[in-house]
Amino acid sequence: MSTSRMAQTPQPPYYAVIFTSIRTAGDHGYAETADRMVELASRQPGFLGIESVRDPEGVGITVSYWESTAALEAWKAQTEHLVAQRRGQRDWYQRYEVRVARVERAYGSSEPSR
Amino acid sequence: MSTSRMAQTPQPPYYAVIFTSIRTAGDHGYAETADRMVELASRQPGFLGIESVRDPEGVGITVSYWESTAALEAWKAQTEHLVAQRRGQRDWYQRYEVRVARVERAYGSSEPSR
Repeated sequence: MSTSRMAQTPQPPYYAVIFTSIRTAGDHGYAETADRMVELASRQPGFLGIESVRDPEGVGITVSYWESTAALEAWKAQTEHLVAQRRGQRDWYQRYEVRVARVERAYGSSEPSR
Repeated sequence: MSTSRMAQTPQPPYYAVIFTSIRTAGDHGYAETADRMVELASRQPGFLGIESVRDPEGVGITVSYWESTAALEAWKAQTEHLVAQRRGQRDWYQRYEVRVARVERAYGSSEPSR
């Protein structure tokens, strides 16, 4: 399987926005907007990568990685993203939680501890 | 749907361990061990919660939340967990990445920004 679904992030420190959610039933335009948001986010200054998984029960975790808090705040305030956030609150998510975190250490299967 | 799959975490700051992975094909004892690890982690001192999602393609994100870096380091070094980590590297994961992050801010659908 392609490993393109895992983000290629630089050495810490950098920032992570952990978005956990439970979807409502039905699509209601969700899939199209979700794809569009990934496309837009990846064009934002300071964007480092994104990892996103949703299971068949509708539980999802998306983690986006950013160079700085300024970069992630600018994405949060991006106009088209603001519209999507409102639709998310109203139509797409039964429940969600956003956590902003500073990544201090990272290691994995393909690199030594860093 | 039950919202029990979302962690009930306290006000920040606290720590998150973001574990992203791509599974190999076949179970090889994975499911049983994964359940056992959640059970063991939740008994560790300083454990705050866990959220875990894997999609049908085998891509997974698990985020566990901890009171302190000491708490998450103690879990990393827990004996049965060490055995599971070695099996994971050998048998269960095609690729994985671990990121340790300090949660600085959190907000969601059910609470005001905090």
